[in-house]
Amino acid sequence: MTVVALLQLNPTVGAVKSNIADLKKAVGIAAEKGADMAVASELFVSGYPPRDLLMDSEFVALCQEAALGIESQIPLLIGTPLSAAKERQKPYNGVVRVSTGRASKIVARKQLLPTYDVFDEGRYFQADDSPGIDRSLPGVSVGITICEDAWQHVGEVPADYGSDPIEQLSTWQHQGEPLAVSVNLSSSPYHLAKEGVRAKLVRKAANTLGHPFLLCNQVGGNDDLIFDGRSIVAWPDGTIVQAPAWCMGILMVDLENPNATSWLPWPDGGCGTNCQCNVECVPDGKEPSLPDKGKDLLSAVVTGLGDYCRKSNIEKIVLGMSGGIDSAVCAAIACQALGPENVLGLSMPSRHSSEHSIQDAKATARTLGMELQVMPITDIHEAADVSLGDELASGNPVAAENVQARIRGMLVMGAANARGAMSIATGNKSELAMGYCTLYGDMCGGYAPLGDLYKTEVYEMAHSINSDALLRGEEAPITNSTMTKPPSAELAPNQRDDDSLPPYEILDEILEDWIERGLRNDSELTSDILSRLHLNEHKRWQMAPAPRVSSRAFGQGWRQPLAARK
Amino acid sequence: MTVVALLQLNPTVGAVKSNIADLKKAVGIAAEKGADMAVASELFVSGYPPRDLLMDSEFVALCQEAALGIESQIPLLIGTPLSAAKERQKPYNGVVRVSTGRASKIVARKQLLPTYDVFDEGRYFQADDSPGIDRSLPGVSVGITICEDAWQHVGEVPADYGSDPIEQLSTWQHQGEPLAVSVNLSSSPYHLAKEGVRAKLVRKAANTLGHPFLLCNQVGGNDDLIFDGRSIVAWPDGTIVQAPAWCMGILMVDLENPNATSWLPWPDGGCGTNCQCNVECVPDGKEPSLPDKGKDLLSAVVTGLGDYCRKSNIEKIVLGMSGGIDSAVCAAIACQALGPENVLGLSMPSRHSSEHSIQDAKATARTLGMELQVMPITDIHEAADVSLGDELASGNPVAAENVQARIRGMLVMGAANARGAMSIATGNKSELAMGYCTLYGDMCGGYAPLGDLYKTEVYEMAHSINSDALLRGEEAPITNSTMTKPPSAELAPNQRDDDSLPPYEILDEILEDWIERGLRNDSELTSDILSRLHLNEHKRWQMAPAPRVSSRAFGQGWRQPLAARK
Repeated sequence: MTVVALLQLNPTVGAVKSNIADLKKAVGIAAEKGADMAVASELFVSGYPPRDLLMDSEFVALCQEAALGIESQIPLLIGTPLSAAKERQKPYNGVVRVSTGRASKIVARKQLLPTYDVFDEGRYFQADDSPGIDRSLPGVSVGITICEDAWQHVGEVPADYGSDPIEQLSTWQHQGEPLAVSVNLSSSPYHLAKEGVRAKLVRKAANTLGHPFLLCNQVGGNDDLIFDGRSIVAWPDGTIVQAPAWCMGILMVDLENPNATSWLPWPDGGCGTNCQCNVECVPDGKEPSLPDKGKDLLSAVVTGLGDYCRKSNIEKIVLGMSGGIDSAVCAAIACQALGPENVLGLSMPSRHSSEHSIQDAKATARTLGMELQVMPITDIHEAADVSLGDELASGNPVAAENVQARIRGMLVMGAANARGAMSIATGNKSELAMGYCTLYGDMCGGYAPLGDLYKTEVYEMAHSINSDALLRGEEAPITNSTMTKPPSAELAPNQRDDDSLPPYEILDEILEDWIERGLRNDSELTSDILSRLHLNEHKRWQMAPAPRVSSRAFGQGWRQPLAARK
Repeated sequence: MTVVALLQLNPTVGAVKSNIADLKKAVGIAAEKGADMAVASELFVSGYPPRDLLMDSEFVALCQEAALGIESQIPLLIGTPLSAAKERQKPYNGVVRVSTGRASKIVARKQLLPTYDVFDEGRYFQADDSPGIDRSLPGVSVGITICEDAWQHVGEVPADYGSDPIEQLSTWQHQGEPLAVSVNLSSSPYHLAKEGVRAKLVRKAANTLGHPFLLCNQVGGNDDLIFDGRSIVAWPDGTIVQAPAWCMGILMVDLENPNATSWLPWPDGGCGTNCQCNVECVPDGKEPSLPDKGKDLLSAVVTGLGDYCRKSNIEKIVLGMSGGIDSAVCAAIACQALGPENVLGLSMPSRHSSEHSIQDAKATARTLGMELQVMPITDIHEAADVSLGDELASGNPVAAENVQARIRGMLVMGAANARGAMSIATGNKSELAMGYCTLYGDMCGGYAPLGDLYKTEVYEMAHSINSDALLRGEEAPITNSTMTKPPSAELAPNQRDDDSLPPYEILDEILEDWIERGLRNDSELTSDILSRLHLNEHKRWQMAPAPRVSSRAFGQGWRQPLAARK
């Protein structure tokens, strides 16, 4: 019996010491529970994505030394940046094997460097061209791949590389000593329905190689990326076992007996509320059970915001609460991520705000247990109207609407600055994509939890938030009124979003076609949207969204949309 | 006698039709003036940098077809995106040769794809591996390289590529038919003192190849990049001829007689005020005469802002004018770029503003001939103080300072929105790097003309602006008081920048070491700066600026500094 422990941990970018401390603790637990060897995730030592830190050769050397210096009772494979081979070359994305009583050794360097979508590895790394193979245990040779290295084989990535590291391992087996197992150290970001693709990947690799294929993934949020964990193993017969999402822990993989594979949750309560803390053994031809979409998105966004704050020493959040669905969902997310005692909502009614807006915001805040302050903007608004009077009177009427949004942005930022808190922007992907938002107004914030979620998905999350609360026997935080009223920016009398935009169910379909699928939807609605944008040739081409291939990666660090309402 | 025309033009990203129209006009002029063949710049058809447009295969196909379809009386080499060779591959950065009476042909594909600093070509392009050679004229074979292809040979770039296309051409000559001339189609961004490096590059290539080496560069601003032109030619004896900077035109290169090389300025007044409209023939061992630093920076920034606006249909600019050096220089730049009749300044005194601030702003605006409105913020400030009273009273005192900056940001944006204008942010690189600025306050704006210039360089530009005016017999726009008073944000009583920052002469040296040279300056001052930032391990590493290698590329699209004053 050989047991390999996949260490599904949550490293922090740049925090080498604490990452290593977590790793040592994990390998200690694994060894104690009988693991014969352990595998960490890609670039674990630096955290993924280390980005420009990799341009600092001192940092890279520090990571490499830290990895090589780890003491481990059992053989341990660790992902780490490795120093460049010579002057004017880039570092490697590699794997080090450490084990008490043996010399530490570099055992693999990544060959396929994804440079599309959220990935930028061609910028930072030198590519290697030979397979990673290590006799990690006596008599046991292990094939070692790093994330993208395994994806060419299944063909599920946009780039077609010239080589296939899984085929290389297969060739190696035919030529010499067979491998007992192959592993893949991953930092594979979350996107909707990615689990199915990962299952396909490990099954294909295990099938080709004729031995178990083990993928260890990072979990947690780092900067603008979110990782779901869900480390996964396949056997040549198509059986798979998948680790839980959204929590740290150790998947103890019994290479000979899939059914004996177990999950060790992280002792300090690293498991989120949604962790089922068990693993599923799925036979060939079946897929791991799909999570509920709204719940899975909620876990993703709570994890992303929570880790962003924790890793950056941000303890408190301030947000504007309009009584609308976006800010209500953001408030719920913030309360889950940081605790309601650390969240301040501001209700900032203007002369155009309806009474129910304030009541809805108050009800949500009360149910969530967070603080809400009502700060009317009327006086500031009137003073600003006096200062800008001549300009606004003769100018574009949208300018006057934006003034209100910017006063609110100023108040949110003022409260956040005074409290040493971070403000969050509550906008969703649908309105951001259409520019239906105010730059320096409602777009203010250090993080936009809904920035990569369409409006229709925000409603799905709202339902999950409410049904979770009801299941716990609590009151639903998002009021019925918030759920059912027509979306409105309330910046002009009786304003409704669908005065300016198509209904969200239709808009979201068009946007998904454009942004996620790279299609040009030539429907009348699309033409209508385009025709309103008054684009010259330069801007017309820039406006046409480029294909984002299959990935729906959670880039929370959204950029300003081109057509932001000026 | 063979004359090769280098078409130094200013394409707009995405505007294929108008780019091609300019190209046809240029090649018509060149042919009429006796050129035997003509060369355009890298990716001329799409404009450089086309970025995500390259992910749209329709756009790439359109560029390629447009290039192949050009009718030209003389052989013409055009840089254009070329369609991918197969599925799941990226397009090429290539060169097409067209010539009346012969079939159009793809004659080169770029081999070395820079993926560092402002360059991201590994993300967008497939690399080729064979040299570009074309019998462009009867009996005349031409070696063709594309920008970075020529830089490995001189070793002046951070990446060490595995191959050297200049050596490939040299090898080709030894094996077969000699080449009469080699060309390099470039889109080589401006940075300070880059001319010297380009001279070294063309001399080394001409020396290795034993024939003239001609580099045709793009000129003008595209998005956040600025190109200076300065197309340049070297002969094997080390003689060089360099085209003017900052203007469109045609360098008529007489391959046999460097002294007969001439410059044809663009007929529609494409030449800026600083164009000398003549070319210098520089013998071996000498360098092209260096431009005055302040004037050259001024040309760069005026070009960048002017092209950004023109290419995006932005006709008017609004900016806040504090009476300080940064906003005065920005106002002068905006007036040069768009004309003073299209620039509105807002003087927005607060209770902490000095009377001289308003007077200085007025004097600058009057001298420049632009509109200035005085819009006191006192009433809005008081109303905001009431709303935020409790928060500000108990919170971080910086919060109250930021409120003023954000009220100003709101007014600038309000006026800009009402007029359909763009606001510009007036901050410089020194204060942005230190976070000595207010997010959503003075950082508001679609473009930051000084965003990549240190404070000491802003003073150099101010001197140039004034001396230019005096030379023209006009009044100096930047007042003596603005030039000499100690910099102050005027957000608190008697506040001075050097209360919170080291003096700018010292700070700028430290920042240049860190940001441009990638050094860790271990001086006490640096430690002092670091110690004030209260960084955890994660943030400390992220704060350490990564080496930006030798380039001082003008990335005007600055990102928010990590330590932005909250």
